[in-house]
Amino acid sequence: MTSEAITVLGLGNLGRALAQTFLRGGHSTTVWNRSAAKASELLANGASSAGTAAEAVAASELVVVAVLDHQAAQQVLRGVDVRGRALVNLTSGTPDEARELAEWAAENGAEYLHGAVYAVPQTFGTAESSIIYSGSAAVHERWQKQLALLGKVTFLGVDAGRASGYDVAILSGMYGLIGGFLHAAALARAGGIKATELTPMMLSWLTDLQPALVTFAEEIDSEKYGTEESSLAMNQSGLATLIRATEAQGVPFAALDSLKALVDQQVAEGHGALSLARAVESFSVVSPRFARS
Amino acid sequence: MTSEAITVLGLGNLGRALAQTFLRGGHSTTVWNRSAAKASELLANGASSAGTAAEAVAASELVVVAVLDHQAAQQVLRGVDVRGRALVNLTSGTPDEARELAEWAAENGAEYLHGAVYAVPQTFGTAESSIIYSGSAAVHERWQKQLALLGKVTFLGVDAGRASGYDVAILSGMYGLIGGFLHAAALARAGGIKATELTPMMLSWLTDLQPALVTFAEEIDSEKYGTEESSLAMNQSGLATLIRATEAQGVPFAALDSLKALVDQQVAEGHGALSLARAVESFSVVSPRFARS
Repeated sequence: MTSEAITVLGLGNLGRALAQTFLRGGHSTTVWNRSAAKASELLANGASSAGTAAEAVAASELVVVAVLDHQAAQQVLRGVDVRGRALVNLTSGTPDEARELAEWAAENGAEYLHGAVYAVPQTFGTAESSIIYSGSAAVHERWQKQLALLGKVTFLGVDAGRASGYDVAILSGMYGLIGGFLHAAALARAGGIKATELTPMMLSWLTDLQPALVTFAEEIDSEKYGTEESSLAMNQSGLATLIRATEAQGVPFAALDSLKALVDQQVAEGHGALSLARAVESFSVVSPRFARS
Repeated sequence: MTSEAITVLGLGNLGRALAQTFLRGGHSTTVWNRSAAKASELLANGASSAGTAAEAVAASELVVVAVLDHQAAQQVLRGVDVRGRALVNLTSGTPDEARELAEWAAENGAEYLHGAVYAVPQTFGTAESSIIYSGSAAVHERWQKQLALLGKVTFLGVDAGRASGYDVAILSGMYGLIGGFLHAAALARAGGIKATELTPMMLSWLTDLQPALVTFAEEIDSEKYGTEESSLAMNQSGLATLIRATEAQGVPFAALDSLKALVDQQVAEGHGALSLARAVESFSVVSPRFARS
């Protein structure tokens, strides 16, 4: 691989891991962070440090942004000359925020690609890490090899907001799992059961559930909810029993009530015999802004 | 396998699947349900039907109970002569409810084993189905072969409440995943993304997360929370961004706020740099009855 000049803006956990990966890949890496202290290990490994974000951007055609949030990304880029740059923004945000930065980049003569990272710290920069991108196809094409260093690349099309749309959905799924896991661990502890005893059994059951979720997804897309799978009425009763049990153990968690409210709404509308997947339709009642697209 | 007499009380989805599995295994199966109509297919397959729960219990030494909830189980068994019977109760409930029935059984001359079933309807009675049991070791021993017909048997010890303790925790984990999945599907739809497009990517990421949850479990058991993994402060910021994004997409879900409250509590206590797993300690604040055992 030809050595290229690459700039990384932001040296939090993600930014530092990005810069290390580019350095390991033999690229001439310039880094910048609001507080310069975070750069020290990277400088020891051969990175160059820039005094300002503008200098850092001037140093390389490829500029990778990994800061705390959208506001921070805006602040860092404001007033910087980005003409001719390929901006790859890995900062989390909403689809509209990504589209807003893509528009700003276009107005200022830069190409914009937005990415969302799926990696635990240990796997970053390996084949087990994965990044979904959307926005500039030209950037995705031109910098393919450098992006591949970071993990598996999935390009979701030219709408810069699409990767964030996936990201928001996937993170909501992830935090559902994590919330459920923490609640399970708290319940286990209250019942004198070790979390390490419970976890393998629980994870094995959650893995067994995956095909049912694939079926749910098919039902949701077609809006045709079957009667064969786990029904809304059964789950309404199951959730009521479970909520009662968590209260009896002294470890209630309002997340279960939020889910039950979705199920209750569908049963109240007369759909109790249909698949639990139909609880997704309750979001349109809970939130008037929810609309089918 | 010797043909044995087995009684199944309750012919909901679970009870019918149980009875079919025993019939397929060559056992002489007596069934009873509050409304007799549910028995018709089983009778056609060779089951005997009893007019009352008492008659059904009289017919077999092994009596498997699978009714809607603990109250229903109490009602069905109240006043029935259970002397010499092996009662296997697969009805969901709290650990204390299972212990209450175990005590009642002991007082009335019966052995009691409580079970919690992990199976989707398609896998019931196969090696992919799994049941955890606790309570009478004698019943677990004597009826091992018959219980093995229903799926993989795990015996968790003689406390009749222990299987329910596991069950309550595992179901809480499961409903966390399902709530997160439904929210993700609703967000995807709002963003013009198909649930069937999103689901494989999401499930693959959730599977990649499993080792992190195993690490969390170790931290929770030892109450030693590291600084290497995903920190509370990072997740606090991530959850705030995510909640804002779900609101911007018109699909808020209060389950995320419930999780964020746990994280906020730990950050407020000064633990922001420690592992997200420490959010489990917030349950003791949220619920005064939560106690370490």
